[in-house]
Amino acid sequence: MREYAIHLDAKQLPDAWYNVLPDMPTPHAPVLHPGTQQPVGPDDLSALFPMGLIQQEMSPEPEISIPGDIMDKYRLFRPTPLRRAYRLEEALQTPAKIYYKNESVTPSGSHKINTSIAQAYYNKQEGVNSLSTETGAGQWGTALAIACAMFDMQCQVFMVRVSFEQKPYRKSFMESYGASVLPSPSDTTEIGRKLRADYPDTTGSLGMAISEAVEVAATSGGTTKYSLGSVLNHVCLHQTIIGEEAKLQLASVDDYPDVVIGCCGGGSNFAGIAFPFVKDKLKKDLNTDFIAVEPAACPTLTRGPYAYDFGDTGGLTPLIKQYTLGHNFMPPGIHAGGLRYHGVASTVAHLKKDDVIRAIALPQTPCFKASLLFAKCEGILPAPESSHAICAAVDEAVKCRESGEAKTILFNLSGHGHFDMTAYDAYLQGNLQDYALEEDVLQKGLASIPEVNEPA
Amino acid sequence: MREYAIHLDAKQLPDAWYNVLPDMPTPHAPVLHPGTQQPVGPDDLSALFPMGLIQQEMSPEPEISIPGDIMDKYRLFRPTPLRRAYRLEEALQTPAKIYYKNESVTPSGSHKINTSIAQAYYNKQEGVNSLSTETGAGQWGTALAIACAMFDMQCQVFMVRVSFEQKPYRKSFMESYGASVLPSPSDTTEIGRKLRADYPDTTGSLGMAISEAVEVAATSGGTTKYSLGSVLNHVCLHQTIIGEEAKLQLASVDDYPDVVIGCCGGGSNFAGIAFPFVKDKLKKDLNTDFIAVEPAACPTLTRGPYAYDFGDTGGLTPLIKQYTLGHNFMPPGIHAGGLRYHGVASTVAHLKKDDVIRAIALPQTPCFKASLLFAKCEGILPAPESSHAICAAVDEAVKCRESGEAKTILFNLSGHGHFDMTAYDAYLQGNLQDYALEEDVLQKGLASIPEVNEPA
Repeated sequence: MREYAIHLDAKQLPDAWYNVLPDMPTPHAPVLHPGTQQPVGPDDLSALFPMGLIQQEMSPEPEISIPGDIMDKYRLFRPTPLRRAYRLEEALQTPAKIYYKNESVTPSGSHKINTSIAQAYYNKQEGVNSLSTETGAGQWGTALAIACAMFDMQCQVFMVRVSFEQKPYRKSFMESYGASVLPSPSDTTEIGRKLRADYPDTTGSLGMAISEAVEVAATSGGTTKYSLGSVLNHVCLHQTIIGEEAKLQLASVDDYPDVVIGCCGGGSNFAGIAFPFVKDKLKKDLNTDFIAVEPAACPTLTRGPYAYDFGDTGGLTPLIKQYTLGHNFMPPGIHAGGLRYHGVASTVAHLKKDDVIRAIALPQTPCFKASLLFAKCEGILPAPESSHAICAAVDEAVKCRESGEAKTILFNLSGHGHFDMTAYDAYLQGNLQDYALEEDVLQKGLASIPEVNEPA
Repeated sequence: MREYAIHLDAKQLPDAWYNVLPDMPTPHAPVLHPGTQQPVGPDDLSALFPMGLIQQEMSPEPEISIPGDIMDKYRLFRPTPLRRAYRLEEALQTPAKIYYKNESVTPSGSHKINTSIAQAYYNKQEGVNSLSTETGAGQWGTALAIACAMFDMQCQVFMVRVSFEQKPYRKSFMESYGASVLPSPSDTTEIGRKLRADYPDTTGSLGMAISEAVEVAATSGGTTKYSLGSVLNHVCLHQTIIGEEAKLQLASVDDYPDVVIGCCGGGSNFAGIAFPFVKDKLKKDLNTDFIAVEPAACPTLTRGPYAYDFGDTGGLTPLIKQYTLGHNFMPPGIHAGGLRYHGVASTVAHLKKDDVIRAIALPQTPCFKASLLFAKCEGILPAPESSHAICAAVDEAVKCRESGEAKTILFNLSGHGHFDMTAYDAYLQGNLQDYALEEDVLQKGLASIPEVNEPA
C-alpha cells in the first residue's frame, strides 16, 4: 500500500526555529545604516519592528524556542503533510524518489503564514495592535491578514495598484479576514500623494508600496509597526519550521534528501525548506545538493554580483550584503510575482557565496508545463512561484532516469495557484511569453548598486 | 495542548462505502420510467451509466467494498482531517463542542472528488474513455476533470453560459487538468443548437446543460458516458467515506455527535456526512439530530411536497420520489449555486419523510456572516454552500450557550470559497440581498410536478 501522505503527529510539531546565522562557515557581513554605512544596532530598527523580532534578526542562538501561543496557532494547520509524488515519479519513469512538503494546505494557501503569525504575535506582545505591509501578488498580504485576524489586530495592506485592479479576488480574500486593502500609490500617505503627483499614470510597484507601508508605521507614534514577508533573517528563520518538519517526516520513512529544492525570490521559502538540512551539511559534512530556483527574468543569484545594496527601490532601508541586480532593477512582468525581487536574503546569499548551496534560473514556460504535469499527477494546482521548484525537481528526476541513480529529491510546494488562474489561462491559450532578459535592462539595474565602504 | 486536527492513519482509511437503501425504515419508492411510469431496470439506465454504477444505484447490500484502485486515488488526499473548532467555540462562548470534517483540502477543493474518482473508475473498467457532464458553480466539473486526468480519460464539461462568462478562472481551473469546457447551450449538440435558436439571448441553465451532456453520451455509441455529481444513490453512497472517516476520528477522541449538520442541494454532501451516523440511529435507536440545511431561496425539503418528479428541467430523466419544488422551479440567483436544485436525492427525501432527519432553510446573509466568523477563527474561507452548514452549527452552539448543554456538533465543511470571491465581495460591500421567495415563483414551480400513478 502506497502511503502518499507522511503525517507528523501534532505532538511532534517542532517547538524551535533554526537560525542559520551562528552556523555560517565564514563571518556574516553586518547590515549597514544607509546614512552612516556603519553596522546597525537594535535601536536603528525599533521604529519599524518590535524588539522580539529585532533580537531574532541578529540572534547568535541556533535554536529559537517557539512561544506557546504561536505553537497553538501553528497547530491550526501544522504539521503540514510531506507527500511522496509516486504518480509523478511514474509519469517521469524515474528511479528517483520525489517528496514535497505541501504548504498549499495552510489557511492562506502558502508558506507565508508561518512568519505572519510569528510577526503578529511579537508585535502584539509589545502592545502593538496594528500592522502595515505591502503586497504584490497577494500571498503575503493574505497571510498577514489572517494572522492579524487571529490576534485581533488591525491590518493595512498597500497593494500594488496594477495587482489591485487585476486581482480583485485576492483583494476580497484579504478583506474577508478584516484587512483594509488600498491600491498603492494611495492618497493616504505623504509619499503616496507625492508619487501620484509625480507619476499620475503609475500602476505602482512593490518599492512604492513598501515606502507607503513604512511611512504609516514610522509616523504612527509606535501604534503601528511594519511587517515584511521575506528577506530578513527573522522571516527566514520562522520558515524553517517547514524543513524541520520535513526532516522528521523523512526520518519516519528512513529517508534523507540527496537534493533539496526551493523557489527563490526574497529567499524565505528556500530558507524554510533548506536551512534545517543545510545545518546537517555544515555540521556533518554531507554532500546534499541545494538548488535555489529563480526566474530567468529576475536572475539575482545567477547573474547579480555579491554586494551591498538597499532592500527597496527608494533606497530607504539598511544596506544588506546580498546578490543583487540593483535596487532599481525592473524585471519583466512574469506571472510568478513573488519571485520578482532584485535582491535576496543575506543568509541565502552568504551560503551561495560559500558554495554550500547553488542556484539555477528557469524561464517560465517550462515551469508552467511542469506545473500542469504535477497537477495531473498529484491533483494540486501549484502557484506559479512553486512551479519553478517543480520544474527543477522534474529535471533532476529525469537526470536520474538517464543515469539510473535513485536519488531522494525534496522540494517545497510553497502554495496553490487558485488566485493565479489568469497565468494558467495565458499558458493554456499559448499566450505565455518567455521574456529574454535584455542586456540594457540588466545593466541599468546593476548600475544602481551603491558604492559602499565595507567594514573591515 | 489542543489538538485541532484529528488525523486518521492512512491504514485506517475505510475500505467500504455505506449504502443506506437496505436499512430504510419503510420500503423505498422505486424509480419510474418517464414514459411508462413503471419501475426502471438496469437496462433502462445503461445508455448513460456503466453497469458498475447502475448496480450500486439499486444495491441491496449495505456495505460496498471500495476497489483498490479507487482506494489508491483516495489516498492522494484521504483521510481528510476532522477538526475541532476550539476558536469558534470560544468566540461563541458555547459549552458545545464543534467538530468539522475538512473536505476543502481535497485537490478539487470540495467533497465532489469522492464520487468523481469512483465514477471515472467504473466507467474506465467497462472500457469507457470519455465522460460528459454539466456544471453550474463549477465544483463538480472541477472534480470530474481531475478524476479524468487521474484515469487518463477525456472529460467534456458543459458549463452554464452565465457561469462560463462570470467565472473564467473556474473554467481555466478545469482546463488545467485537461478538460474541455464549453458554454451551454453550445453549438456542438442538437439540443444546444435548438435552444440557441429558440432563445438567442439565453444565459443557460443547469437543466439545459444536463440535456447537452446527456445527448453527447446518448449519441456516442457507448464511447462516452454521462456523469452526475449528486442526487443519485451511487453518488450519495460514494460520499459516505466522509462520515465513515469522521466516525472513526470521533471515536479516537471518545466522542460521538449529538447533532450532525450538512448543507443540502442535490443531497450528496448531506448524505456523505450523515448516512454513516443515520445507520447507527436506525439500528441502535439513538436520538441523534440530523439537520439538512437548504437555502431559503430554494426550500426543497421545507416547502416542497413529497412527490414523484423529474430530475431535470426538460423532463427527460426517470421519475424519482423526492421532495420537489417542481422541475420547472427557477430559484433566485443566490451565490450558493450548488444548492439551487428543485429536488433532492430520494434517500434523503425518504429519511426526511420518515422523520429520521429534519431540514431547515436559511437566508444567505446570515450564512455569509457566520462564514466570515468561521474564517477569522479557523483560517479557512468556506464555499457559500458550506456556509449554510456553518450557520446552522453556530445557531445550535448558541442554543447550547443559552441552555448550558454541552452538545457535540459535527458538520461537513464541503469546500473552500477560493473561486467564490465575487460573493464575498458583494457581502463585504453590503450588496448581498436576501431574496424573499415569491409566492408566484413557488406556485409556478409546484405546478410543474407531474401527475404520476404510483405503483402499489
